[in-house]
Amino acid sequence: MPLNHQILLDNRPQGAASASNFKLVSSPTPDLQEGQVLVRHHFLSLDPYMRGRMNDSKSYAAPQALGEVMQGGTAGEVIESRSPRFKPGDKVVGMGGWQEFSVVNAETPAAMRKVDTTHVPLSHYLGAVGMPGVTAWYGLVKIIEPQAGQTLVVSAATGAVGSAFAALAKARGCRVVGIAGGPDKCQYATAELGFDACIDYKLHTDAGSLSKAIAQACPAGVDGYFENVGGMVMDAVMLRMNAFGRIALCGMIAGYDGKPMPMSYPTLILVNRLKVQGFIVSEHMEVWPEALKELGTLVGTGKLRPRESVAQGLAAAPEAFLGLLKGKNFGKQLVKLI
Amino acid sequence: MPLNHQILLDNRPQGAASASNFKLVSSPTPDLQEGQVLVRHHFLSLDPYMRGRMNDSKSYAAPQALGEVMQGGTAGEVIESRSPRFKPGDKVVGMGGWQEFSVVNAETPAAMRKVDTTHVPLSHYLGAVGMPGVTAWYGLVKIIEPQAGQTLVVSAATGAVGSAFAALAKARGCRVVGIAGGPDKCQYATAELGFDACIDYKLHTDAGSLSKAIAQACPAGVDGYFENVGGMVMDAVMLRMNAFGRIALCGMIAGYDGKPMPMSYPTLILVNRLKVQGFIVSEHMEVWPEALKELGTLVGTGKLRPRESVAQGLAAAPEAFLGLLKGKNFGKQLVKLI
Repeated sequence: MPLNHQILLDNRPQGAASASNFKLVSSPTPDLQEGQVLVRHHFLSLDPYMRGRMNDSKSYAAPQALGEVMQGGTAGEVIESRSPRFKPGDKVVGMGGWQEFSVVNAETPAAMRKVDTTHVPLSHYLGAVGMPGVTAWYGLVKIIEPQAGQTLVVSAATGAVGSAFAALAKARGCRVVGIAGGPDKCQYATAELGFDACIDYKLHTDAGSLSKAIAQACPAGVDGYFENVGGMVMDAVMLRMNAFGRIALCGMIAGYDGKPMPMSYPTLILVNRLKVQGFIVSEHMEVWPEALKELGTLVGTGKLRPRESVAQGLAAAPEAFLGLLKGKNFGKQLVKLI
Repeated sequence: MPLNHQILLDNRPQGAASASNFKLVSSPTPDLQEGQVLVRHHFLSLDPYMRGRMNDSKSYAAPQALGEVMQGGTAGEVIESRSPRFKPGDKVVGMGGWQEFSVVNAETPAAMRKVDTTHVPLSHYLGAVGMPGVTAWYGLVKIIEPQAGQTLVVSAATGAVGSAFAALAKARGCRVVGIAGGPDKCQYATAELGFDACIDYKLHTDAGSLSKAIAQACPAGVDGYFENVGGMVMDAVMLRMNAFGRIALCGMIAGYDGKPMPMSYPTLILVNRLKVQGFIVSEHMEVWPEALKELGTLVGTGKLRPRESVAQGLAAAPEAFLGLLKGKNFGKQLVKLI
């Protein structure tokens, strides 16, 4: 059996996460039992939600166990199968974790799905045509419920969720304004991702200043906001929300390091009769087929051209992940293993 | 024509409101034009929302104009009519403001409605069977959408909204826990208003401590929260919300004096997939008939026995209003004029 390299969670972060929280180990892949499949991972997905699971605190998901392989999405190829449901050569997407190989029980529902790489590159099934894409779809369609002509804002605009959000919102006739960090990302958002405008939050040191920039980019105010970061950015957008605006709360990366990030102006929820709703896309599996179909079409037809940041080799995963938490990635953060 | 005493907004509060913001004046009531009605007010309604309108800031309603009669709900009797729609002796509820008499254009839709005082005392049409009662109804039925057996919490529990909320929630088979200030109010909430438990927030100096008391009173967590006050109380309840909990945001009296009151733990909205929604009951006139019918029945059958704090005479209105903002009232705050 091939030797499998793995990254474990070795200890929990005190404050900010660091490379010392992780540990690289290796072990042979086990022999397959009946019904099992051996998958070689081509790509690991790195996502902000993983930071929350590194804490040992109450959350929607159980914490990542210490001494276990870091959990996460993977895209790869079946190299050995003892299940009639998969055969060697099948391209598959699953939750294989931070390792080079995984053994999957093929009979477990939703453990793994076959994907078609004819029109959609394999890696995009971890991004635009995967969990991040469906996340954007759910927040937009089910919580923001936009009408054509409305103005929508998304933070972390050039990330996997933000770029899918833009394409989905444009398809619905909305004005879409992004918030991202740095001129390169903002330029890319408008030139390549279809954003009508993009605001560089790094040019602003307080919510009031950022809020003025949002007002300029959103002359008719903000009807819907997809929140990926929290903190100052959220405060700034809230100051520009129109009456009956909707905020889909999907990530608050700014608060993952343990310090609670307050919302400065909750009275705006009352004054403007806002709806603020949190959600976890894995709890809404019923929408995945419809969402993936739309996202696959957008990618296949070139209307959604998501950018990727690709780190090379399993050992690069921790640093790439820490960079993601600081916004150093540019587009969907992946680790390429072969 | 009778002499009319009136209270005007003389100047806007800097920080906390004070008696010097108001001014008592008098003038004769004008002669009636065709279609007009002269109403003698028996009761003025004092409500927390009025504090927000005293500020000259963007809100859902235009600010109260300086030099004009303070706006507000009134219940009274028609004493002269030049409209076929009302006759002397009719008991009516309207928005007559802080004055002894008002002249109403009877043809203006919804300017005033006749009420039946056979089973419901006139004053209750300003409370349980009026705007505060419908406010409780809307937040409960349309935002919290409770199921029998769920646990609901309401702040300002013995106020006009809170007491109606308790009766409406008990009628739907819920456990209802109140939060109020002081042992007398808490005792009254459980003994007279049907609350299953009531927590005295004045026994707690921080959200963590109050949150522990809420956990004891809500062993199965909190599924729905009706927010009347904001600040520390809101933080404390949020720490106990169950997954998929709903928060109806109706008042944030704690923040009306101009200092923004932050929400300390907005990440809980994400972690627990909460829905937080603000609303203004006057924007949902379509529910009023259904809500008033249920509330009238609850009062008429003794299942809702709202308490009132009654100040005597127009000149007492400012001090009674300032007391309301500090929680000195016990039940619906009214001013009795005759």
